[in-house]
Amino acid sequence: MSQEIKRIKRELVQKGSIIDLYKDHIQLPDGQVKKWDFVKHKGAAAVVAVTQEGKLLMVRQYRNALDRYTLELPAGGRDTPEEPTIECAARELEEETGFRSEHLEHLISLRTTVAFCDELIDVYVADRLIPSQQKLDEGEYIHVEEYDLDELCQMIFDKKIQDSKTVSGILAYKLKCAMEK
Amino acid sequence: MSQEIKRIKRELVQKGSIIDLYKDHIQLPDGQVKKWDFVKHKGAAAVVAVTQEGKLLMVRQYRNALDRYTLELPAGGRDTPEEPTIECAARELEEETGFRSEHLEHLISLRTTVAFCDELIDVYVADRLIPSQQKLDEGEYIHVEEYDLDELCQMIFDKKIQDSKTVSGILAYKLKCAMEK
Repeated sequence: MSQEIKRIKRELVQKGSIIDLYKDHIQLPDGQVKKWDFVKHKGAAAVVAVTQEGKLLMVRQYRNALDRYTLELPAGGRDTPEEPTIECAARELEEETGFRSEHLEHLISLRTTVAFCDELIDVYVADRLIPSQQKLDEGEYIHVEEYDLDELCQMIFDKKIQDSKTVSGILAYKLKCAMEK
Repeated sequence: MSQEIKRIKRELVQKGSIIDLYKDHIQLPDGQVKKWDFVKHKGAAAVVAVTQEGKLLMVRQYRNALDRYTLELPAGGRDTPEEPTIECAARELEEETGFRSEHLEHLISLRTTVAFCDELIDVYVADRLIPSQQKLDEGEYIHVEEYDLDELCQMIFDKKIQDSKTVSGILAYKLKCAMEK
C-alpha cells in the first residue's frame, strides 16, 4: 500500500523564521502527478508542570496566528532538530515559568497537523519544581498562572482552551492520574 | 497587554494547495520589527464515530508529511472557510468511513499549532451510524478499522497514535464517558 502514493520531488519554496515551506511532487497510483504542501518544523516540547499543591502551571501569551491570547502548557521549539526533547522541555519550563525540575517523565508524543507538517511535540510531566528565574526570549511576553486539573479539563469542554498540545497534554495527564488511583 | 506586540504588515509569500504562507511584520514593545511566519488554513472537522457496539471507527492512511501510515479520526478540510464545521464533519465521516449519521454533537475545538498557523479543527461525536458508501477524494486511499476506546487510549500512551486531533478527540471522549457514568 505504501507504493500507492510516491513522492518524486521535494522543492524548497521559502525558508521562514520557524518553518520552511516545500512543494512536494506526488505521484498517485493512477500515474497523475499532484503538488502538495509540506511544512518542515524543527520539533518542540511541552510540559505539564505540577506544583507541590497539585496545581498546573500554565502560560498566557499573545498569539499572532490567532490574533488573541491563549492559555497553554509551557512549551517551545528545539534549538536544533537534533536536540533531545527532554532537554528542550527542561529549558522551556525554566525559561517560561521560572521553575525548573530534575524530574521530567515522558507523557505523550504529538504530531500537530499531519496533513501538511512534520512538527513533533513531545509532552513531559514535571514535578518537584524548584524556584528559579524566568528567561524569556526576545518577543516573548508570558504570564504564568496556576490552575486545578479539573478546572482545566472543564475549560477544554468550554472551548476556553483549544491549543492542541495543551488539550492533549492535560487530558492525557488527567487520564494517567485516574488510572493510577 | 495586547498593545505590546503589534502586527504592522501581512505579506503573502506563497499560495499553496491547502495552505497559504505569509510573512508578518511584527513590532515588539521595544520598537524592533521582526518577521514572523504565518500559515493560513481554511479549517477542518474530525469525528469520533461510535458504532452500535461502542467501538470507534478509525482511518489508516499514508501521510506524506510524516512519510508513514497514521491511525486517525475520520477528518477533513472545510470546502470553504465559511462552511459550518458540523456539515464538514458529517460529509467527511460519510466519505471516509462509508457511514453517515444524523446525530453529531460538538466535543472540543482545537487549534493545531498556534505558534504559526490559524488552523481550527472542531471535533464532533457521531453515533447511530447508518451504512452508506465511501467516497474518497482524488489521492485519498483510506483503510477503515474499528477499535475499543480503551485500546485507543493505550495506543496514545504507547506513542502508536500521535496525531493531535486524534489524541485530543479520543481522550476528550474517554473523559466525557467517564464523567457521564
